[in-house]
Amino acid sequence: MPAPEQTKPTLRPFLAAAKIFASGAQTPRQFLEDSLALLERWEPKIGAFVTTNLPAARAAADRSTERWRAGKPASPIDGMPVGIKDIIETVDMPTEMGSSLFAGWQSRKDAACVRALRDAGAVIIGKTVTTEFAASEPRGTRNPWNLAHTPGGSSSGSAASVAVGIASTALGTQVIGSTIRPASYCGCFGFKPSVNALNRQGSHDYQSQSCTGIIAASLEDDWQVAYEIAARVGGDAGTPGLQGPHSVPPPRKPRTLALLETAGWDIADTGAKERLNEFVARTKVAGIAVKTRHDDKAVAALESELPKVTELSHRCNGWEGQWFFRVMRERDAAKMGPITRERTAKYDGLTLADYRADLKERARIRAVYAALAESCDACITLPAPGGAPEGLGSTGNPEFAVPASLLGVPALSLPLFEDDGMPLGLQIIGFFDRDADAFAVASWLMQTR
Amino acid sequence: MPAPEQTKPTLRPFLAAAKIFASGAQTPRQFLEDSLALLERWEPKIGAFVTTNLPAARAAADRSTERWRAGKPASPIDGMPVGIKDIIETVDMPTEMGSSLFAGWQSRKDAACVRALRDAGAVIIGKTVTTEFAASEPRGTRNPWNLAHTPGGSSSGSAASVAVGIASTALGTQVIGSTIRPASYCGCFGFKPSVNALNRQGSHDYQSQSCTGIIAASLEDDWQVAYEIAARVGGDAGTPGLQGPHSVPPPRKPRTLALLETAGWDIADTGAKERLNEFVARTKVAGIAVKTRHDDKAVAALESELPKVTELSHRCNGWEGQWFFRVMRERDAAKMGPITRERTAKYDGLTLADYRADLKERARIRAVYAALAESCDACITLPAPGGAPEGLGSTGNPEFAVPASLLGVPALSLPLFEDDGMPLGLQIIGFFDRDADAFAVASWLMQTR
Repeated sequence: MPAPEQTKPTLRPFLAAAKIFASGAQTPRQFLEDSLALLERWEPKIGAFVTTNLPAARAAADRSTERWRAGKPASPIDGMPVGIKDIIETVDMPTEMGSSLFAGWQSRKDAACVRALRDAGAVIIGKTVTTEFAASEPRGTRNPWNLAHTPGGSSSGSAASVAVGIASTALGTQVIGSTIRPASYCGCFGFKPSVNALNRQGSHDYQSQSCTGIIAASLEDDWQVAYEIAARVGGDAGTPGLQGPHSVPPPRKPRTLALLETAGWDIADTGAKERLNEFVARTKVAGIAVKTRHDDKAVAALESELPKVTELSHRCNGWEGQWFFRVMRERDAAKMGPITRERTAKYDGLTLADYRADLKERARIRAVYAALAESCDACITLPAPGGAPEGLGSTGNPEFAVPASLLGVPALSLPLFEDDGMPLGLQIIGFFDRDADAFAVASWLMQTR
Repeated sequence: MPAPEQTKPTLRPFLAAAKIFASGAQTPRQFLEDSLALLERWEPKIGAFVTTNLPAARAAADRSTERWRAGKPASPIDGMPVGIKDIIETVDMPTEMGSSLFAGWQSRKDAACVRALRDAGAVIIGKTVTTEFAASEPRGTRNPWNLAHTPGGSSSGSAASVAVGIASTALGTQVIGSTIRPASYCGCFGFKPSVNALNRQGSHDYQSQSCTGIIAASLEDDWQVAYEIAARVGGDAGTPGLQGPHSVPPPRKPRTLALLETAGWDIADTGAKERLNEFVARTKVAGIAVKTRHDDKAVAALESELPKVTELSHRCNGWEGQWFFRVMRERDAAKMGPITRERTAKYDGLTLADYRADLKERARIRAVYAALAESCDACITLPAPGGAPEGLGSTGNPEFAVPASLLGVPALSLPLFEDDGMPLGLQIIGFFDRDADAFAVASWLMQTR
């Protein structure tokens, strides 16, 4: 349990704390009250929430307390305080999508993942700040590690609220770098699952490579939340949903990792590269083979594709979001931010024929990546070019996070490094529908840091 | 152009009428005014609309008139009066989903398909009545061919409004039989495309085998509306969208058709079977081979699977909709109709493991069907067991429409028959992503009826 007096951001993992709920030594309601004390202290500084519903949260925590007392928790995350990115619908709070075009807008329903969380007993504190329409236009959230720095985005409030322990987990989304990057910038555990692995109904991310992402205070919490969502509402309709065990996969030592530079390498901070290289040296000492573009043909083949993924992602997303932004522009273009207006204008001329060609190209690059599974257990790289940059006008460069988004494969950011006094993660990229394998590697790498 | 004095339901195809718009002999505004005269006459009897926005429709028709005058129509459907099933979002009208739980609810956006229609110049008259949440609970619309009979459902208002010429086309959806059956019952042309072929963003049909369906006054109108939607917003994100030419595929004589009995054969009216058998006899005279379960192994193999498709569809839909109905029940179960309550309760216990098994079974049956493409150009059957039954308490039996829904393949209902004074269609079922081929066969069969 955190000391309520702390001033440094501190994660508050839930599963570890919940071990004493059964004994009655602590209750979910007490755990929530600590969350709310942190909310009171931090929220005026960081601006992580758009809306809260504290009476509902307290009532949910009380019901959870009763279930634990009765020895019948609804799930291992029963009582977990969570935040919901404000692009995802909640029946009891507005969903504003970071846009005044949806000020006060009520969906009259929960998104599938929110309903799953409620059924699992989670305590929903509020809606966390998203950039405008989960794209690039920031909405003022500050990084709790340094208030002059961005928390990253688009899941800005989710990362910031988890970083300071208000929430043990918060839902985000990722179509470019919106989960992995803010998780890294704020020192949290970030998980972007395989594409379609978590049901996105009621979440306003309309793109085919978008995913519900989970930002958490521990690897265990991260997996468990994903698992509990999938168990109750599955993946996107027509897909099998997240595959894996009912609690975090145990550590498994990888034999071979691929170290990816990605298109971000040239812009990465020297310090960040040093942290990663030191880590690679330690993994080699531990007996793991680490392949790079410089010594392996399959890695080199993949690396030669990665400079294309950002533009290709923007093109796919651009076509898929065209209709929506046309409607918004007609409603009131002045209410759209300049970054969004510029981005949507750039891809407004794309045609269905262009999109079909882009889908084929994406499938081709995915196949190049899939071939790597024959010789590697996972890939590692940075999740961002460095620690969170100063300034609130941009959520930072997404280059390192885009490959997993375009490839549709699972990615994790583990808060293992520091860069200039700001947190920095290690990114682990796995293979499609093998999210549990990526967690098993991550668990092992956490132990040997 | 219809005589405004008529009292028998009469389709008003748009593309045929639009041929004289360029000459100025008629205008889209005049075409719309005829629609609105029919609305005034018929709507009090049939109850096809939940909401209309006539000032917006007239303004859209005037803009269309200007474009035609300038020789620059936005598309061949520029000026077409259309209705939108009230499960699909419109920025200027509420989307109520046939449920008082969404009374007056505003989405603040257009669905992708609605935006596409507006961009193509279509004139949106209003929102058509849907059964509750596009499931089975009727909402009072009457069949214009006999007001004591059901129009079918769930796209009840869409079929009824097209049948009397208020709209030339209306959007529906189909996950069980919601487009093909009402189209047959009301004497319209119905088209359920290949699964994912039309973008469903902003449409509240959450199931993996659900499709945006199009009910139209002619085969030409049906194809053109589908084409114009796909050209502007594609299919569901991540899929190539409807494939085919920019106007209705020309007639192509099939060499071989499969006559399917489906699980509905035993409950079909004698008259309906006779109409179909007479039609088959005529096609044989025209030199087309017609295979049946009695003389062809591939057809027999498929027919042996078809009795499973209704329950399997309900199971898939049941899992996929569980989260939504749990939220609605908690909001106010008393505001859900008895049919919906009973249906959702029946499938409430399904687990993710069940769903994964059901998806595999669905894929297996789809493969059995796909094998038929080697020896057949298309399948034909009834779209319903007979003409629309008397009574407004049920939308009729869907057995004949379910196979194409579960198989995810294109289906058309052509208004070729009558049964006891009520319209009855011929259903043509095609193969996945070959919607244009199904239209080519349909065009040919229309000529030779």
